[in-house]
Amino acid sequence: MGNKKEFVKDITNINENFAQWYTDIVLKAELADYTDVKGFISIRPYGYSIWENIQAYADKKFKEHGVKNVSMPVLIPENLLNKEKDHVEGFAPEVAWVTIGGGEKLEERLCVRPTSETIFSTMYSKWLKSWRDLPYLYNQWCSVLRWEKETRPFLRSREFLWQEGHTIHETEQEAKQFTLDMLEVYADVIENLLAIPVLKGQKTKKEQFAGAEATYTVETLMHDGRALQGGTSHYFGQNFTKPFEVKFQNRNGEQEYAYQTSWGISTRLIGAVIMAHGDNRGLKLPPYVAPIQIVIIPIAQEKGNVLEKANKIKEKLKEKFRVELDNRDNYTVGYKFNDWEMKGVPVRIEIGPKEIEKGEVIVTRRDTLEKMPIKIEELQTKIEELLEDIHKSMYQVCKNRMKEKTSIALNMDEFIKNIDENQGFIKTMWCGSQECEDKIKELTGAPSRCIPFEQEHLSDTCVCCGKKAEKMVVWGRQY
Amino acid sequence: MGNKKEFVKDITNINENFAQWYTDIVLKAELADYTDVKGFISIRPYGYSIWENIQAYADKKFKEHGVKNVSMPVLIPENLLNKEKDHVEGFAPEVAWVTIGGGEKLEERLCVRPTSETIFSTMYSKWLKSWRDLPYLYNQWCSVLRWEKETRPFLRSREFLWQEGHTIHETEQEAKQFTLDMLEVYADVIENLLAIPVLKGQKTKKEQFAGAEATYTVETLMHDGRALQGGTSHYFGQNFTKPFEVKFQNRNGEQEYAYQTSWGISTRLIGAVIMAHGDNRGLKLPPYVAPIQIVIIPIAQEKGNVLEKANKIKEKLKEKFRVELDNRDNYTVGYKFNDWEMKGVPVRIEIGPKEIEKGEVIVTRRDTLEKMPIKIEELQTKIEELLEDIHKSMYQVCKNRMKEKTSIALNMDEFIKNIDENQGFIKTMWCGSQECEDKIKELTGAPSRCIPFEQEHLSDTCVCCGKKAEKMVVWGRQY
Repeated sequence: MGNKKEFVKDITNINENFAQWYTDIVLKAELADYTDVKGFISIRPYGYSIWENIQAYADKKFKEHGVKNVSMPVLIPENLLNKEKDHVEGFAPEVAWVTIGGGEKLEERLCVRPTSETIFSTMYSKWLKSWRDLPYLYNQWCSVLRWEKETRPFLRSREFLWQEGHTIHETEQEAKQFTLDMLEVYADVIENLLAIPVLKGQKTKKEQFAGAEATYTVETLMHDGRALQGGTSHYFGQNFTKPFEVKFQNRNGEQEYAYQTSWGISTRLIGAVIMAHGDNRGLKLPPYVAPIQIVIIPIAQEKGNVLEKANKIKEKLKEKFRVELDNRDNYTVGYKFNDWEMKGVPVRIEIGPKEIEKGEVIVTRRDTLEKMPIKIEELQTKIEELLEDIHKSMYQVCKNRMKEKTSIALNMDEFIKNIDENQGFIKTMWCGSQECEDKIKELTGAPSRCIPFEQEHLSDTCVCCGKKAEKMVVWGRQY
Repeated sequence: MGNKKEFVKDITNINENFAQWYTDIVLKAELADYTDVKGFISIRPYGYSIWENIQAYADKKFKEHGVKNVSMPVLIPENLLNKEKDHVEGFAPEVAWVTIGGGEKLEERLCVRPTSETIFSTMYSKWLKSWRDLPYLYNQWCSVLRWEKETRPFLRSREFLWQEGHTIHETEQEAKQFTLDMLEVYADVIENLLAIPVLKGQKTKKEQFAGAEATYTVETLMHDGRALQGGTSHYFGQNFTKPFEVKFQNRNGEQEYAYQTSWGISTRLIGAVIMAHGDNRGLKLPPYVAPIQIVIIPIAQEKGNVLEKANKIKEKLKEKFRVELDNRDNYTVGYKFNDWEMKGVPVRIEIGPKEIEKGEVIVTRRDTLEKMPIKIEELQTKIEELLEDIHKSMYQVCKNRMKEKTSIALNMDEFIKNIDENQGFIKTMWCGSQECEDKIKELTGAPSRCIPFEQEHLSDTCVCCGKKAEKMVVWGRQY
């Protein structure tokens, strides 16, 4: 084998140091990298390709709901940001300000958009005339800036990629329904594309978006039992349309302010995929979002017709799947196995002289490492079934974990014991006061995740103050 | 008809005031709008959808060449911008600077990217080790900022959307070839998608990109005879890889600096589509890039089965085409005809009781306004042929105009006469000196467009100084 490399470099053990394991995966699988711009990351082709698959899936669903894409300015003047009180309080501390343009100090400073409610509202105010124009269902795919102190690729950085949908409607009811429809799209993306089960619910007032009347969320649980917010959808009522004068002539000929929503998912979802599915061998990608679904590794590729046969199989599979053939001649087969396992490719196909003789290949699934011979002529059908099975099975693994790591706490001792031992989702009853919510976070490090749509009656009293309970809330430490 | 609106609002005559005609089209066809952020535009759904079609077409071609998409930071530290002398001189005067982030003055100011050679080079320097890693063929779809004084939607604004490809290669030859390959992709996009013929060539030293060794261009000609640069592809040699230390171990075991390219097309192309094809009725969209390829307008839609039949036809056509059915009941048929002509939809289908009886529809093409009855059962096939014919015919109209408006000038009197009478492309011989190039621009307002790949020998002497000519150059006033 001469100077061929034998093994991929070690990855930190997932159970010893999950944070370091995560960073190792991001860097070694070449998903992203740190840059010379503090707090900013570069998303590399393998990571970006995951994002492109998320985009394609979500964009199609949005469009099925009548959503259209647009582009709004990346810079927002300070006076626009200031128009909605809660909004500016929420975002002003973490924005980046442009103060010089074209060599001259600007009269008014402009922030690099942290989110675009203000600019969408301004344009809607300009365009909207009559109830007949409604709804406006617009979205943009772009990047936004928030001046975070720490940097963790995909999870926390000063710039991240996302989509932000902004809609206005004729009635409160229609707007609220649309907010929930978009939450369903997010649940669809996360469950059916990323193979991660979600918990759906409403954020408490404390945790809702700055300026929103209600924020809905899909919450997910990672390998280590910490929660990650998968996507949020906000109902604004007329909170922005009033200060921004977004009004229309309604069916009775009167002027009325429109009802507004916004909703977003971001490249955080790539972080979720890594942390929900990965293991000590590295990344484990769900088949429908994987940039490479199948890797073909020729055995003894220098011999006879191995490469030719491998190429033929590749061409055939390419009709339906995303396939790569690894014919590098400066790596051993062992290295390649490790390398593609680390990169999380769902299916590996080995083919060598022995297999060619039998008219079959050896197929290994990344999630269980189970191996099976498959007849070459059956490959296309079998792989299709296999990918579906891998998806379902990866989803089920997460579902089981979520079940195991969800516990009930009837008092604060139980709460603290459960979360310290097991992390996870803690279900409790809650009186509805922010005082208790603050206290719980202080005592446990766990903010509320949401008030689940599916409510249960665990007891009559608040887990914290013991007063009459209003709702069941799920809590959890978070990314 | 009661309060139904009868006509679309007037558009300025294209031959009387082309600039105002352009603005009218942009605003009335709802392609884009001005915003409260000076110099920044908002691209509305109809305009953005054109961009999405350009993106889809170009992105597929890039990927066929092995290009992969990535994401790089939107902010670039001043010291990186300063590393390549020509580059910083070219861009520093027109950038926007972020000086405050997260409430604090930054130690080093960061510019919002005007282009990303510097940041790509920095990352390439980090990643590149061996000739085996090469080439890196990366691209990003994003927006960039340049602090322009004037604003004309799609043509000139402080922010615009584009793609920027950045590649590095093992050899000079491979890099140069890739630069030309990408120019061919641009020619393909502009000719085969946008139906606009291009003139291919190399920019003169004066007109080339800041920091490039060679810039190649595809030039187009608009309705009024002015030129518009459709896309450019740059060969950098080692101009950036040396200061940014982008080097690799070559096949001989030595350290060598990589050879670099970059290339871009932008939302300017939407401006090109408007100005190359439009007329006094409004926009005229080439079929393959049109967001709506066919609009169906029911006649006497309140009668019998008209709407039902129209819907059936829509569903059938939707399998292959982008179709809209205009069943608005508060507009007259006449208004709808005008409205969709103004919006440039390539094919209109009318269907009313009379047509249903005959089993046909009336089809009108936007480019020639020619009307023809088509049997309903033949519609899918005939429309496919028709779209192809419209594309070819629109291309040919532009091709003929380009031919008519291209003239030869052997001396400056001819040059000035031709360009004042006819605008267009002026072909001349040129000595190669920047002195003459500057003087020609001063006298005629026409910078050089390019040194065409297809050279002709018009005379022995420079059109300006009369000294020995080196090359044929094409000149033209520009957008």
